[in-house]
Amino acid sequence: MASESASTFLWGGRFSSGLDDLMMQFNESLSFDKCLCHADIQGSITFARALQKLNIITEEELTQITSGLQQVGEEWDKGTIVINPKSDEDIHTINERRLGEIIGTQVAGKLHTGRSRNEQIGVDMRLWAREQLKDIASSLKDALAVFTAKAKVTLPVLMPGYTHLQRAQPVRFSHWLLSHATFLLGDLQRLSGVADRVASCPLGVGALAGNPFGIDREFMAKDLGFPTIHPNSLAAVADRDFVVDILQWASLLMVHLSRLSEDLILFSTAEFGFCQVADAYSTGSSLMPQKKNPDSLELIRGKAGRVMGQSSGFLSSLKSLPTSYNKDLQESVEPLIDSLKTVSDCIKITAGVVATLEIRPEKMKAALTADMLATDVADYLVLKGVPFRETHHIAGSVVRKAEEQGTSISELSLEHLKEITPLFEADIKDVFDFERSVEKRTSTGGTSKASVLEQIASIEAFIGKAN
Amino acid sequence: MASESASTFLWGGRFSSGLDDLMMQFNESLSFDKCLCHADIQGSITFARALQKLNIITEEELTQITSGLQQVGEEWDKGTIVINPKSDEDIHTINERRLGEIIGTQVAGKLHTGRSRNEQIGVDMRLWAREQLKDIASSLKDALAVFTAKAKVTLPVLMPGYTHLQRAQPVRFSHWLLSHATFLLGDLQRLSGVADRVASCPLGVGALAGNPFGIDREFMAKDLGFPTIHPNSLAAVADRDFVVDILQWASLLMVHLSRLSEDLILFSTAEFGFCQVADAYSTGSSLMPQKKNPDSLELIRGKAGRVMGQSSGFLSSLKSLPTSYNKDLQESVEPLIDSLKTVSDCIKITAGVVATLEIRPEKMKAALTADMLATDVADYLVLKGVPFRETHHIAGSVVRKAEEQGTSISELSLEHLKEITPLFEADIKDVFDFERSVEKRTSTGGTSKASVLEQIASIEAFIGKAN
Amino acid sequence: MASESASTFLWGGRFSSGLDDLMMQFNESLSFDKCLCHADIQGSITFARALQKLNIITEEELTQITSGLQQVGEEWDKGTIVINPKSDEDIHTINERRLGEIIGTQVAGKLHTGRSRNEQIGVDMRLWAREQLKDIASSLKDALAVFTAKAKVTLPVLMPGYTHLQRAQPVRFSHWLLSHATFLLGDLQRLSGVADRVASCPLGVGALAGNPFGIDREFMAKDLGFPTIHPNSLAAVADRDFVVDILQWASLLMVHLSRLSEDLILFSTAEFGFCQVADAYSTGSSLMPQKKNPDSLELIRGKAGRVMGQSSGFLSSLKSLPTSYNKDLQESVEPLIDSLKTVSDCIKITAGVVATLEIRPEKMKAALTADMLATDVADYLVLKGVPFRETHHIAGSVVRKAEEQGTSISELSLEHLKEITPLFEADIKDVFDFERSVEKRTSTGGTSKASVLEQIASIEAFIGKAN
Amino acid sequence: MASESASTFLWGGRFSSGLDDLMMQFNESLSFDKCLCHADIQGSITFARALQKLNIITEEELTQITSGLQQVGEEWDKGTIVINPKSDEDIHTINERRLGEIIGTQVAGKLHTGRSRNEQIGVDMRLWAREQLKDIASSLKDALAVFTAKAKVTLPVLMPGYTHLQRAQPVRFSHWLLSHATFLLGDLQRLSGVADRVASCPLGVGALAGNPFGIDREFMAKDLGFPTIHPNSLAAVADRDFVVDILQWASLLMVHLSRLSEDLILFSTAEFGFCQVADAYSTGSSLMPQKKNPDSLELIRGKAGRVMGQSSGFLSSLKSLPTSYNKDLQESVEPLIDSLKTVSDCIKITAGVVATLEIRPEKMKAALTADMLATDVADYLVLKGVPFRETHHIAGSVVRKAEEQGTSISELSLEHLKEITPLFEADIKDVFDFERSVEKRTSTGGTSKASVLEQIASIEAFIGKAN
Repeated sequence: MASESASTFLWGGRFSSGLDDLMMQFNESLSFDKCLCHADIQGSITFARALQKLNIITEEELTQITSGLQQVGEEWDKGTIVINPKSDEDIHTINERRLGEIIGTQVAGKLHTGRSRNEQIGVDMRLWAREQLKDIASSLKDALAVFTAKAKVTLPVLMPGYTHLQRAQPVRFSHWLLSHATFLLGDLQRLSGVADRVASCPLGVGALAGNPFGIDREFMAKDLGFPTIHPNSLAAVADRDFVVDILQWASLLMVHLSRLSEDLILFSTAEFGFCQVADAYSTGSSLMPQKKNPDSLELIRGKAGRVMGQSSGFLSSLKSLPTSYNKDLQESVEPLIDSLKTVSDCIKITAGVVATLEIRPEKMKAALTADMLATDVADYLVLKGVPFRETHHIAGSVVRKAEEQGTSISELSLEHLKEITPLFEADIKDVFDFERSVEKRTSTGGTSKASVLEQIASIEAFIGKAN
Repeated sequence: MASESASTFLWGGRFSSGLDDLMMQFNESLSFDKCLCHADIQGSITFARALQKLNIITEEELTQITSGLQQVGEEWDKGTIVINPKSDEDIHTINERRLGEIIGTQVAGKLHTGRSRNEQIGVDMRLWAREQLKDIASSLKDALAVFTAKAKVTLPVLMPGYTHLQRAQPVRFSHWLLSHATFLLGDLQRLSGVADRVASCPLGVGALAGNPFGIDREFMAKDLGFPTIHPNSLAAVADRDFVVDILQWASLLMVHLSRLSEDLILFSTAEFGFCQVADAYSTGSSLMPQKKNPDSLELIRGKAGRVMGQSSGFLSSLKSLPTSYNKDLQESVEPLIDSLKTVSDCIKITAGVVATLEIRPEKMKAALTADMLATDVADYLVLKGVPFRETHHIAGSVVRKAEEQGTSISELSLEHLKEITPLFEADIKDVFDFERSVEKRTSTGGTSKASVLEQIASIEAFIGKAN
Repeated sequence: MASESASTFLWGGRFSSGLDDLMMQFNESLSFDKCLCHADIQGSITFARALQKLNIITEEELTQITSGLQQVGEEWDKGTIVINPKSDEDIHTINERRLGEIIGTQVAGKLHTGRSRNEQIGVDMRLWAREQLKDIASSLKDALAVFTAKAKVTLPVLMPGYTHLQRAQPVRFSHWLLSHATFLLGDLQRLSGVADRVASCPLGVGALAGNPFGIDREFMAKDLGFPTIHPNSLAAVADRDFVVDILQWASLLMVHLSRLSEDLILFSTAEFGFCQVADAYSTGSSLMPQKKNPDSLELIRGKAGRVMGQSSGFLSSLKSLPTSYNKDLQESVEPLIDSLKTVSDCIKITAGVVATLEIRPEKMKAALTADMLATDVADYLVLKGVPFRETHHIAGSVVRKAEEQGTSISELSLEHLKEITPLFEADIKDVFDFERSVEKRTSTGGTSKASVLEQIASIEAFIGKAN
Repeated sequence: MASESASTFLWGGRFSSGLDDLMMQFNESLSFDKCLCHADIQGSITFARALQKLNIITEEELTQITSGLQQVGEEWDKGTIVINPKSDEDIHTINERRLGEIIGTQVAGKLHTGRSRNEQIGVDMRLWAREQLKDIASSLKDALAVFTAKAKVTLPVLMPGYTHLQRAQPVRFSHWLLSHATFLLGDLQRLSGVADRVASCPLGVGALAGNPFGIDREFMAKDLGFPTIHPNSLAAVADRDFVVDILQWASLLMVHLSRLSEDLILFSTAEFGFCQVADAYSTGSSLMPQKKNPDSLELIRGKAGRVMGQSSGFLSSLKSLPTSYNKDLQESVEPLIDSLKTVSDCIKITAGVVATLEIRPEKMKAALTADMLATDVADYLVLKGVPFRETHHIAGSVVRKAEEQGTSISELSLEHLKEITPLFEADIKDVFDFERSVEKRTSTGGTSKASVLEQIASIEAFIGKAN
């Protein structure tokens, strides 16, 4: 259709001219995948070793390739490597190009034998992610150690426990703190499953159909420290499940940090007043000189949405892809990198906020009101043999009676109480004690001192550290 | 502010009247949580046993409660239970109400001693989900057995392998089939981690602060078959991480089914023509009598979005919740139920589609073109000592030469080939054989017969069944 | 491949047997699209009218079809229509089947001339959505009238304004109320654009290529009250943009209701104590007799996630669909129906909560502290010619001085103030008045009485009603 | 709790040291909001003018501020501005700091009088987004012009129309092209509503409560070219609805580009072969020399998920925010910037791909098969008075008969046809003509030549350009 092409050209002109630049920029990934530079070099060295075992390259050539690649790595570290924006479209291309310049293309040109970028990017991302996850696991343990240490020093402090954000029953502040640690501990436990799935080595699968030179995939996996190899070549080049895994894991962790932030922001209001975020994690106002805002926590809460969006967004990109490798998968790299940086930062900031948090036990104590002991009143009657459903109604009547008398339930006279039911006796007064109420919750996971200490010990055992 | 209330009433009138009905309907959950009826009964029986161990109820009362609850369960099965829309707001309420009618409120009223609906809904959902996940694991194994059986009987069939949906290299149809099985196998492996996290027992945590009667949580967990107990009461009533886990897991599984569906829909087009979906899984057109449409696969692909939305949506609901239980958590129940039903249906439909899929090996064979062997040409030269990067360029020249000659690369004369490089010899003709190309991919995970059989054996070993 | 089929059958057996039932249930949509019954009938009557204009049916046949369809509609209303689960897969099928039974298939069989279900479902959904959106617009106006009425009667009430949830500057309670009304007003404005896009008539586009009988699409659109017709047949049957539009609109509206709910839940805590949700919109606790929880608001907040998930989920289903109609689009129906019901309920519940909200002006007043006037101190100095940045620092010093003296800034003596800067004079005392501070914010959109009344008037003008 | 602080310090040590750096980096926004530099300057100049009208600054000072800010703008353009990472946390801070260095802090310090960063960031983002949306609208019009021009030159070309990706009825290639243009036209129409909502000026609302100096907000809005002012100060600083609007709009547009990409990727397969993406928008393979991949389209399809994730993610961040400004809102800036860049690039790349697309009419023609005319056979009988439902069955019999005879329906003899129904006459042969079938679809929006030209004219009229 030559005639069409001609006319097409007329109005297509603006898109043809300058098109190279936009398409080149649209297509390149080096601007973000350069953080994979060392992983890419590590994967290439392993691949070269496997080629040598096949005698596709000689020992001498292996040495050249290895030292050449190490030099490329040093150039990345020193920042001396020069990017050619016209040709260096991704981390594999630039590393291979630079290697050729250093050791000559005759030898460098053998490195890619039977290998494709489809497998390379897979192994690079997995190597990189593996290291990041190790660091994050370590940060998470440090953060948990902060929680347990803080819980220990605040053990005597009581505060209101809430449901529906309404005062419900008294709890220990440390119990509240550990409720958040519990979620983070779950993240740490889940992380090991995620890390296992990251550690499946795709090297040696070729572009899609497998390697035709009989390359030793088990050797390469072992050389890279991966316990398993990816079982199917078509799946291997299409597989970004490990990215999904990481993003989903990161989303839930961020939700945990967001929920903790929500609590701390509330507790830092003038109205609650239970704690104050340290200056280092707060900022002031450009207009209102008296303000001190918990910006760190608000940012964490906001960034939870960011990571959640990366997770759901990438899953959408993946959803309808056809068989094997498609370029859409390039969109897995940026969310992986950005989400892990976000998670890492947020864990550290959270640990810092908790470590330096100034708590105000007297404000918490002042917020404990006698009506929070209504369940204890019901429990008192249960031990006198009244069915719980009935005690629940009676305790409700006590609350209403106190309201009518304009007093608190702990101030009602025994006479008033006996009007409700004669089962009340003098010892009911013992019930109106917050410490006693808390100490009654001795079942595992409860808010009594013993139970809290048991929780602390359990977390410390898991993370392998005590303070 | 009486005067305000009065005026408020005037314009608020429409909202006050009839308000009870809308709010009641807005608040109730029985219309969907009734599927938890047996789980709720099971949890209550266990709780009663624990109360008896504490002597809060007698053995006699335990017997009454147990048989009463069993009768309620039978009424659910028979459909004879009568819902009172005014008072039966959730599954806990109706079961307790009905128990009271059967055995009298004096005894029934003791069942809730020290127990809250916050812990009840948690244990109910976990018990229910555990059973669903068992069934789904079983369906998934059945589906994998379908894949391996189909792979065995189609072992000789070759087809084009694609990247970017462009023909790339020849592969076995069974290798392609197993590439999708690989993803589903990953789902099965991941599922056991999810199921572990579901199986953490919250029973005995009270409304938020723990149980004040020293209830034996370990006993209850064991009685319900849960290996672990939830470690913190405040966290336990706030914890829907197991729902998030399930939804995230289900999202990724649905993405896998969506990708398989995408392939099968493409392969079923007139243009590809590689296979045809059985009539049982197709539908016709109301307007076009010749049509046969793969509706089953399109629905699966569409439902992937549904489950993904439930996952990201519920995570948003969870994101900023403050401490402990909030009613927002009620929004976890419907996505849990609907997503597991969707997943279960989609796995079964997928297995059925694959089991009954009619494949057309002759169409696949016809789609194999000689240019898909260009990499093999390059590999041929590699074995003659030419660096791969150079062989890649030479093979490119072969492709171009064939285009110039208006022929395929397999039809080029040796003379023409030698014009490109004298390294070509008569044995190059051996390269132009699809079966040979496929059989060269012998490394683990490759598309050679041996490698495919190894994959089949590995899957069969994992699922514990062979056909 | 006969031999394969045979062996396939062996292991595929379980999927073949009983397959009809599961696939039938998986494929059918009548269980949810039956709510479109009247829209479907309306579309069919219009289509019959257009067929009569083409003389494809006679006037007599039109009369028969019309009255037959009206009878079907009445049967839906009365609940007497009997669904045949084996054949009635969707609302179009059952209506056409029933019409044939009533007027005979000879005439009924002409109704579908040149028409496809692809266009039918499009027009049905649009007709149905149009009516729902009208009702929702009306509810939204009623809700806005509640906000303005409440704002009027609470005009004198002052409360702390917050940023970062820290007390910042005093504002009117009514100003706060109108800040939420402002977002809802935006929803109402956006809704008219959404409704416009819904009202594009696809009737007459056939299955994909257009109508071959020259049907008058303009006439049909007009008959159905649609201002525009869909411009391209291939796009028309693929187009669910109006569903996306509605879901996106609904998501943002739900976020607005969620933010209002968040505020009201906070303000209803014992710690803030600014208001109390009416009993009708609250519930109690099964364990804690003293509790009163704002369940209505928590449910709204939770349901925001539900609608957001439906929005992002369906967009994912749509994302990679190929040309024209695909069955994946069936997944548009349930989110459309569920989200509009959710939105409608939540608007009404919100209006009810606000209408019946009991506010506590004395608690709000007590929460106003002198440091919230620090900006006013800075402004005082600005009017004496000091650059704002400097006044900001001076006001900061005043806040610190008060802290050092253990007093509030309004209690600092003039001497103390003059130590900071001699520009302070006796009239600084006038600054320490919350009402004065509020009344100074007279610019449009500010919190002064005049500005608030102007906002109320503006909303009332837009919704066409005043109280 | 001094003793606690001490012990806290021990284990909190690592978080305290170096904490300033991480928190500073976590909190700063200059690294991304610097693209707002000119918008920030423009907003400040307008604010200075309004201050001068109030005599808070003199005309002389206004001149100084204006020329100082212009100099700052030039420094940004030249890249000579030096960022101080310790203090320049955002674009407002650095611009104000630099202004003070240029004109002295005595005058520069007055610029912020009564103004807060909360209103500044709002106005900056809106000004910036407004310009971006203008550019994008222009690109979208250019793209639409490419579609209509391409449709004109390809008007005679027929291709199979598909539903469920199965061949359905013949259509014009240009009709298919315009089906995608229809969706993009919808985006263009929707964009004007989005732009209107962006153009609501928040300047003059203060930190939250309004401006206390009576600043003229109408003047400022007009000076900045905004038609409306934001009506409520508390809402104004909390309002990122315009970002949501943009992200939702961008998500749907990206879905449209993704669907077009999906079609073009399919049509570019060897199996369809309907078209080929130009070299400029394709890339090759590192392993397979024969490959040419439509990377541009795959990237667009992948980036749709990216933008969708930004949309749903930010909505999650927004969902539960309490009243007025919270720092979480900082998370609105990056998605806004990134999504608009992505959209802009993708529109241009799409236009380029379409403009340079090489189409293959002979392959499309070869894909037209007689069974696609089965509906036309049914229509033939309708015009002979047979009810459509019956004609549909007869046409189905014709399809089956042809299958039995191993021929196509157009090759069946009249005798064979008459065996099915005697209504078939010699003129049935006229039906078996693809051009005739296409030309019968003359109703508006159909695929006939006249209807396609009408669509082209309508789009050209809307975008105000013809080729």
